[in-house]
Amino acid sequence: MTQPNLHRHVRLLGLSGSIRKNSTNTAILTTLADAIKDKAVMSVFKLNEIPLYNADYEDAARPATVIALRDAIEASDGIVVCSPEYNHGIPGVLKNALDWASRPALESPLKAKPTLIMTSSHLHTGGARAQHQIRETLSAALCRVVSRSEVVIADSNHKVKDDRLVDDAALSSALEAIDDLLQEIRLVGQDSR
Amino acid sequence: MTQPNLHRHVRLLGLSGSIRKNSTNTAILTTLADAIKDKAVMSVFKLNEIPLYNADYEDAARPATVIALRDAIEASDGIVVCSPEYNHGIPGVLKNALDWASRPALESPLKAKPTLIMTSSHLHTGGARAQHQIRETLSAALCRVVSRSEVVIADSNHKVKDDRLVDDAALSSALEAIDDLLQEIRLVGQDSR
Amino acid sequence: MTQPNLHRHVRLLGLSGSIRKNSTNTAILTTLADAIKDKAVMSVFKLNEIPLYNADYEDAARPATVIALRDAIEASDGIVVCSPEYNHGIPGVLKNALDWASRPALESPLKAKPTLIMTSSHLHTGGARAQHQIRETLSAALCRVVSRSEVVIADSNHKVKDDRLVDDAALSSALEAIDDLLQEIRLVGQDSR
Amino acid sequence: MTQPNLHRHVRLLGLSGSIRKNSTNTAILTTLADAIKDKAVMSVFKLNEIPLYNADYEDAARPATVIALRDAIEASDGIVVCSPEYNHGIPGVLKNALDWASRPALESPLKAKPTLIMTSSHLHTGGARAQHQIRETLSAALCRVVSRSEVVIADSNHKVKDDRLVDDAALSSALEAIDDLLQEIRLVGQDSR
Repeated sequence: MTQPNLHRHVRLLGLSGSIRKNSTNTAILTTLADAIKDKAVMSVFKLNEIPLYNADYEDAARPATVIALRDAIEASDGIVVCSPEYNHGIPGVLKNALDWASRPALESPLKAKPTLIMTSSHLHTGGARAQHQIRETLSAALCRVVSRSEVVIADSNHKVKDDRLVDDAALSSALEAIDDLLQEIRLVGQDSR
Repeated sequence: MTQPNLHRHVRLLGLSGSIRKNSTNTAILTTLADAIKDKAVMSVFKLNEIPLYNADYEDAARPATVIALRDAIEASDGIVVCSPEYNHGIPGVLKNALDWASRPALESPLKAKPTLIMTSSHLHTGGARAQHQIRETLSAALCRVVSRSEVVIADSNHKVKDDRLVDDAALSSALEAIDDLLQEIRLVGQDSR
Repeated sequence: MTQPNLHRHVRLLGLSGSIRKNSTNTAILTTLADAIKDKAVMSVFKLNEIPLYNADYEDAARPATVIALRDAIEASDGIVVCSPEYNHGIPGVLKNALDWASRPALESPLKAKPTLIMTSSHLHTGGARAQHQIRETLSAALCRVVSRSEVVIADSNHKVKDDRLVDDAALSSALEAIDDLLQEIRLVGQDSR
Repeated sequence: MTQPNLHRHVRLLGLSGSIRKNSTNTAILTTLADAIKDKAVMSVFKLNEIPLYNADYEDAARPATVIALRDAIEASDGIVVCSPEYNHGIPGVLKNALDWASRPALESPLKAKPTLIMTSSHLHTGGARAQHQIRETLSAALCRVVSRSEVVIADSNHKVKDDRLVDDAALSSALEAIDDLLQEIRLVGQDSR
């Protein structure tokens, strides 16, 4: 497990469950990246070019974009997932990327990685129903999902303007959650295992 | 909803959750297609060429393979899903295809479509844990998931040889489940709504 | 499976996921019972006296209230579940009752029983997150869960007054769902298996 | 949050999802309690006398057994859940106890409590399907569920004799998991929040 170096910024990796051009979920991640830049560097890895998971292309045969995703996960101190809800669950786009990242089982780059889950949606339910499938996927991959009250951003089309999260309450609740993720990263850095 | 014509064969659509070349799940579907050919025509739609779901390419902008998948669903009387389990859940590949097929919500080609769920895996759990996410996805898309005891084919690498399901017990339990799907299709054909 | 007699009223059984005195879920069920009395008789079976499930008290040793619950399920043509959401899922009270009712596996009184799921809650999410656990439980018990858009009654403390559901929109959406349950019951009555 | 005192034994609380007399899940917990007595004191709180959750009896009106359960959780440094699977999910008995323990939301005795999940069953699936509902319930209550490979004890009727877990492989895998729980408790003890 990566030991965060106290003399450098913490590195976070943002993963959005939507790949459309003006995704509110991606906009929330890029807004957060700016807002936290004094304490952490967050880059957003876009999933647009990840191919469908195919077990024939594991190990040496892994596609270049999959290697890049896995390297980005490996190099990060923690992950921030921000995702819509499709059919009451995790978007196939996000599940597919996590399927690639989770191999080999129990020894993947996701193992023990502190991870924060957020959902947003145009609806009043804010994607809340997707969180259990996202948590189950990350738990199966042995991520260390941050235990806290859920971040759910409802009515996101009114809160994101010009690809920026402009709603103060939503921004501040998301920032509190990021602080909990940073605390979890510090804690894990003290783990002597 | 399509009314099955009593003077023709019932048409089933097989969807495999794995796109690798020698997928045991795909092999199970093609074996079943042969075994039931006296009572139904089952074609398997391979998901290899389905792009990642992107809401920017809905309606008129839908990719050709997505249109083909949706047309195949529309033209079928029922669906047979056979899938592995990835990270305790539905493969991203399958979820992604269902995300495309499920639009627009409540009025998609999946609505009221009789659907049978099967899982198989090399492990002794047979992919059983994936069934709840598959059922939840199909239920959210308003499929009519066949209510019966689950079809779970464990140790599939010993039961599939040369891309054929050769285990008699597994084949016969899958065929009983297909009979229940066919009965559900007949029942829905009597629905006067 | 019980064949509904066309010369009598359909019998529905209401199960509330809350046993508190002024439960809005119970109130919704009793309001619906009155509203549909021209087409079906719905009785509400209160779960207050069901003991904790204990496998030592199966078969001949079943507690009297459990026998009464199982008899009420057996005698009904269909079930209406109306439940709050506890800890993002099914209330233990409701799960416990269904655990008793679901034995023996695959041959219980719940088998093939048409069942409608509704949730309500004081929150704006309306208990929506409980539906997947309720559906999974009922599906495992081989209920025939009605496939339709979900009935979710949010802000229920503003819509239920003096133990009556007084919100017209919520009432009418619940009644449409009951009509779908009645149609499912008619359909199943034509099943010749 | 309780700070574990380094000069005393760690206190663990065992919760079994089954209340029958010769429950293999309870037997696994009592066997583990003996096996770890040099490093931790584990007591098993039996759920037999917990009444059905009723929101009319919250706060000052809480039943004595519920108060005892909540006190035992509060006094513990960590929790070990060992449970069967009923209807593909969490037993109502266990869910009901956690519903009582989880109030008030976000500020209950379960908050931030390190918790380990184990399942066992007479079947070859070992109760694996119950783990996602148990994890979802504990996560909703803000427990700190230990992130590790799942402990699943299959064919438990062959591994538990005279109320003792006598299978070496199962015992040793469960003890490794307990070590991870103890490590999590130490880690949380360093959390300065």
